Amino acid sequence: MKTVFSELQLNHRPTFELSDGAMAPAVELPARAEFVRDRIVETGLGAIQPPDAFGRGPLERVHSRAYLDFMDGFRAQCEREGRTGEVFPFCWPTAGLRADVTPRHLDGQLGRYSFDAGTPIGPESWRAAKVSADTALSAARLVKDGERAAFALCRPPGHHAMSDRFGGYCFVNNAAVAAQYLRDQSAARIAILDVDYHHGNGTQEIFYERSDVLFLSIHADPADEYPYFLGYADETGTGEGAGFNQNWPLAIGTDWDGWSAALDAACGRVMTFGADVAVISLGLDPYEHDPISRFRLQSGDFTRLGARLEKLGLPTLFVMEGGYAIDALGVNCVNVLSGFEDAR
Amino acid sequence: MKTVFSELQLNHRPTFELSDGAMAPAVELPARAEFVRDRIVETGLGAIQPPDAFGRGPLERVHSRAYLDFMDGFRAQCEREGRTGEVFPFCWPTAGLRADVTPRHLDGQLGRYSFDAGTPIGPESWRAAKVSADTALSAARLVKDGERAAFALCRPPGHHAMSDRFGGYCFVNNAAVAAQYLRDQSAARIAILDVDYHHGNGTQEIFYERSDVLFLSIHADPADEYPYFLGYADETGTGEGAGFNQNWPLAIGTDWDGWSAALDAACGRVMTFGADVAVISLGLDPYEHDPISRFRLQSGDFTRLGARLEKLGLPTLFVMEGGYAIDALGVNCVNVLSGFEDAR
Repeated sequence: MKTVFSELQLNHRPTFELSDGAMAPAVELPARAEFVRDRIVETGLGAIQPPDAFGRGPLERVHSRAYLDFMDGFRAQCEREGRTGEVFPFCWPTAGLRADVTPRHLDGQLGRYSFDAGTPIGPESWRAAKVSADTALSAARLVKDGERAAFALCRPPGHHAMSDRFGGYCFVNNAAVAAQYLRDQSAARIAILDVDYHHGNGTQEIFYERSDVLFLSIHADPADEYPYFLGYADETGTGEGAGFNQNWPLAIGTDWDGWSAALDAACGRVMTFGADVAVISLGLDPYEHDPISRFRLQSGDFTRLGARLEKLGLPTLFVMEGGYAIDALGVNCVNVLSGFEDAR
Repeated sequence: MKTVFSELQLNHRPTFELSDGAMAPAVELPARAEFVRDRIVETGLGAIQPPDAFGRGPLERVHSRAYLDFMDGFRAQCEREGRTGEVFPFCWPTAGLRADVTPRHLDGQLGRYSFDAGTPIGPESWRAAKVSADTALSAARLVKDGERAAFALCRPPGHHAMSDRFGGYCFVNNAAVAAQYLRDQSAARIAILDVDYHHGNGTQEIFYERSDVLFLSIHADPADEYPYFLGYADETGTGEGAGFNQNWPLAIGTDWDGWSAALDAACGRVMTFGADVAVISLGLDPYEHDPISRFRLQSGDFTRLGARLEKLGLPTLFVMEGGYAIDALGVNCVNVLSGFEDAR
C-alpha cells in the first residue's frame, strides 16, 4: 500500500493547549507523523510519496469560502495586529449570542470560526493543514486511479473540522475533502467510517443532509468525552440525508469485543449502502494506553481492524486522524494497514 | 450613600485567564474590591455594611434552575473527579453542534453553561459569586426601603452572566437579580443603564423579551471588543420587549465628548420610559488607562457621570461591574458615587 506524506505537515508545532479545563502540553505533535512514517519504512509497507498541490478548489467543496478566507488571511492579520506565536480563541457565539455577525477583531473572528479552545494556531499551522489536505487528496487520487487502497498520513488531523469552524486539533476536514473529491471524480456513493476515539463531528456536519455520502462513526459516548455536543445515537441525518448518518457511542472502557461488534454493524451498513469507495477516518486513540482516551483496544486488535475492513472488498482510502500514544502510534497505525494488506 | 460589601466576595481568586488568544495573568482580582472599599473609607462616602443572605430564590428569577444546579454542584463534582485548582471550559456548543444536550462530563457541562474561556472557576468562586449577588440584593433593599441611592460593591461582577451561562468573569448577573428583586418588591418599571466598557450581554439576554425592564448599554463596538457576539445597535428587543433594549456601540478611542453624548441619549430614554428605579451597571473600564480597554474617560469624567445620573431624579442602585486599572479603580468608582451625592 502506498503512503502519501510531506514533511511540510510537521510545521504546525503547537506547544500547549487548553485540555480538560487546564493548560497542558500539546499532544497533537509533529512526532506523531514521524513515528508512523518511520514504522512504514521499517515494515516495508510500501512507497511513501509526496502530495501534489490541489489548490483551494477541493477545499471549497466542503468548507465555506468565508472560513477559508479567514484562514488564508490569518497569518497576515496576526502580523498586522502584532500577534506572535500561537493564539487561541476565547469567546464563542453560543445560543443566546449572535451567530450572524463576524467581528472585525481577530479574537472575535477566531471565536466565530471555531468551537473550542484546544486548538492552538501558529503562523505555519494553516499551511501545514493545507498540505495535510493535499496528502488526503493525493491518496484519494491513487484510489481513483485504481489502487485497491492508499494511506494518507495526514497531520494535522481533520475529522473535527466543520464546514466553517476549526477545533479538536483540526483545520481542514481531510477525510471530507477527499471523499468529496472522489465523489466529484468518479464514485457515486462514498462511505466514510470514522474509528477515532472521538466523534467526527465535522465530517458528520458536512454531510448530514446528503444521501450520497454515508457517515458512520464508532467513538466514546459524547456525554462523557469530547466533542460533547455531537455524536449521539439519535443523530441519523436530515432531509435528503435522513438515514445516512449513524453513530455508535460506546461506553468508556470498551474493549475489542464491544468495539468490534459496532465495527461489524458499521461494515454491514457500508454494504447495504452499496458504497463504491470506503474512506476510513483512522484514529489510533481507541488504544488501551492512549493518554487522553479510555477504550481498551490492544495493538493486535488494530491488525484485526485492518483485516475486517479489507473484507468490505472496496477501494479504500485510509486518512489518519487522532492517536496520542506516540511511542505506539507507528505500530498501531501500520498494524491496521498491514492487516488490510495481509488479508487480501 | 451606603455601600454593601462582604470580604467573602474576595475568595474568588483567579490566577490566570485566556485573554486575547493567549494565557495571561488574571485581571479580575480581589484587590479590585479592596481598593474601592478603601477609597470609600478614605473619602467618608458613607457606611459600609455587610449583605444579608437572600438564598437561591432571587437567583432563580433570572437564571435557569439547571444552571444554578450545575453551579451549586460544581465544587462537589470537582472533588469527585479529582479536579483541583481553577478550571476552564474548552469546548462550546456553537451553531452546527447540539444545544439540547447536557453532557455528563464536567468539561462538557462547563461548555454547556458558559460562552468563553476567560472565566476561571475555583472551588470558592461560586460561593463568592452568591455573596456578590447578596450584596446587590441588600443594596437594592436599601433603595426599596427609601434610600435615594445605594452602592453594591459587587465582585465578581455580573453583567456578562446570561440566564444559563457564565462568562466574562461573571457567574451571577447581580444587576439583573437586583432589578428583578426591585420589580418583584415594589417597582413597576426598572431602567438598567450599563456603562461598562464591555457590552452587558447577559443583562440584555435576560430582559430582551420584556417591556418592564429597559436595558440600555454604552460600550465599545462588539465588532472590535469582547463580547463580540452581542451589543450591536440593531438589537432593540423582541416580542413584548421590542423597543426596550438599546445599545450605543462606540468606536475605540472614544473620549468624554463622544461618550457623554451617548449618556445623554440614554438618560433621555430612561426618562421617556418612565422608570421608577435606575440600576446602574457601573463598570469603571471606560477609563483612559484601563489595561484591557480603549476608551478615554478621565478620572474627573467619572464625577460628571455621577452628577448626570443624579439628574435623573430616580432612586438609584449602583452595582459594580468591571474596571481593571486597579490603582485608579477606587478613585474613579467613588468619583461616580460622590459626583452623584454632591449633585443632590
